[in-house]
Amino acid sequence: MTARRQSCKAFARHATRLCAPPSPLAAYRAHEASLRTGFTHLYARRERLDRSPAAAFRSQCRDGGHTSQTSGCVPGFVQANFVALPRAHAFDFLKFCLHNPRACPLLDVTAPGSPSPTIVAPGADLRTDIPKYCIWRDGEVAGEASDVVDLWDDSMVGFLLGCSFSWESILQREGLPPRQVEQGVNVPMFQTSLRNASVGPFAGNLVVSMRPYLPSQLGRVEAITSAYPGAHGGPVHWGDPTELGLTFSQLTRPCWGDPVEIRPGEVPVFWACGVTPQTALREARLPLAITHAPGHMFICDLQDSELKV
Amino acid sequence: MTARRQSCKAFARHATRLCAPPSPLAAYRAHEASLRTGFTHLYARRERLDRSPAAAFRSQCRDGGHTSQTSGCVPGFVQANFVALPRAHAFDFLKFCLHNPRACPLLDVTAPGSPSPTIVAPGADLRTDIPKYCIWRDGEVAGEASDVVDLWDDSMVGFLLGCSFSWESILQREGLPPRQVEQGVNVPMFQTSLRNASVGPFAGNLVVSMRPYLPSQLGRVEAITSAYPGAHGGPVHWGDPTELGLTFSQLTRPCWGDPVEIRPGEVPVFWACGVTPQTALREARLPLAITHAPGHMFICDLQDSELKV
Repeated sequence: MTARRQSCKAFARHATRLCAPPSPLAAYRAHEASLRTGFTHLYARRERLDRSPAAAFRSQCRDGGHTSQTSGCVPGFVQANFVALPRAHAFDFLKFCLHNPRACPLLDVTAPGSPSPTIVAPGADLRTDIPKYCIWRDGEVAGEASDVVDLWDDSMVGFLLGCSFSWESILQREGLPPRQVEQGVNVPMFQTSLRNASVGPFAGNLVVSMRPYLPSQLGRVEAITSAYPGAHGGPVHWGDPTELGLTFSQLTRPCWGDPVEIRPGEVPVFWACGVTPQTALREARLPLAITHAPGHMFICDLQDSELKV
Repeated sequence: MTARRQSCKAFARHATRLCAPPSPLAAYRAHEASLRTGFTHLYARRERLDRSPAAAFRSQCRDGGHTSQTSGCVPGFVQANFVALPRAHAFDFLKFCLHNPRACPLLDVTAPGSPSPTIVAPGADLRTDIPKYCIWRDGEVAGEASDVVDLWDDSMVGFLLGCSFSWESILQREGLPPRQVEQGVNVPMFQTSLRNASVGPFAGNLVVSMRPYLPSQLGRVEAITSAYPGAHGGPVHWGDPTELGLTFSQLTRPCWGDPVEIRPGEVPVFWACGVTPQTALREARLPLAITHAPGHMFICDLQDSELKV
């Protein structure tokens, strides 16, 4: 013990003279209040970004000034899929997302009863800040609403999941524009035959979005999108759609969104899609759940570049 | 539509001739049944490993053949911290782990009532396969047990969290043996003044383990351990212990484990520790919770090398 105490004193005496590199403690402390939460993937929040455009847009939604789709709105800011359900199902749904991270990349989860996504938009109110909501009853969309204040009791838990919008502008900038952007329509989405990992009442099938590319472009397309695991990451498949339980002719008849042209020589490329949890909601038949209406996403304070790993 | 249908047919006709690289679908499918679940971090399960030593050891625990600490047992296999609590608190505790990933790196979470950790040890029974358990009542350890079959009702949810044992043998192999291994004692652990991110009733303070190293060794020590985020990752701090609310002389009196010698010129290096959730359990004062007894860990089918990212 004496030797140990002496060595401690020696350490204290020489501590200031030691040439150790800076301790990682500041980084650890900073991450506590940042996005490095381990919600599926680790993100790095950058300092000194002007996040006010996101708050301004959400305020417009709250006041009824913006009621339409959000595609192209507030460029550079992360758009998120939204699911809310009662606390009784929140553990299973959180675990469902963790088990299906390609389709359900978690960006934030509220405390029960709180409408505030404290990680990605601390000042926001999830009951009012989305342009349009779908109200689900017993597994079916029973109606739409411009706010869900009346439905948000002490038990409601809100989940925000990443969306492929985050890398579409980057593909475009790199000379790889998604076809539906070129055609000015919505991305085509398809329900596949691939079952999700099931957790409690939540299962359903993987839903994919599709963008056609030339085989020679696949390497770059995969590299770019894989850097955004919080926005579904890289493709889950390309080529033969029958591997996903889809016929070739079905590619012209998407389950959601609009058909796009596949040009000669191109292959269809498929990404996991944020509509996937809705197939799980359909099967779970909860008495109540809330989602954003298709295309009417939640705008985060977070910028797309912050999702890059 | 006609043009689109034609382009689809053209695609079908030429599909086999396209020189696209192999689709990532096989990898996606494989990951469904693997560790790439997004539980805090992504792991890669390797094929064709002999995992039978882990099952054999757990069977010994189950039969009462092994009732002591697990340090050094079944080398190469991941040892995990264990927490179980009723479903009513499982959502908050899961979120607590996600918000404190350095201290609580999630390896697996069971379904309510199920004692089977299907990701890291599908054949195991968490009620019997740990050598010794602590039973917590109202935030205090009320007793120990060699199994918890009687306490495991339909509501119990088991959590397995990574442990620094996973990289200690690698440090040793690299000529950087942890001091407590050299001295043949348990690693010293300290409760810091750093508060955890709180979720529901769970908060508590960060607990750290400490291993002294020379400043010149810190780079390698940090690089090696940072590659194992599922086992607490790299150090959270080194040097002045007062930054963690600890005096120099306290380093000789750990809260858990044994004191180790700090030699002249060495700095104490601190890692987040799996005892942290126990400080959260203490504050949460749940009517019932179960953990492993200190040092009596759960042995996973998973090998340490599979936790490397």
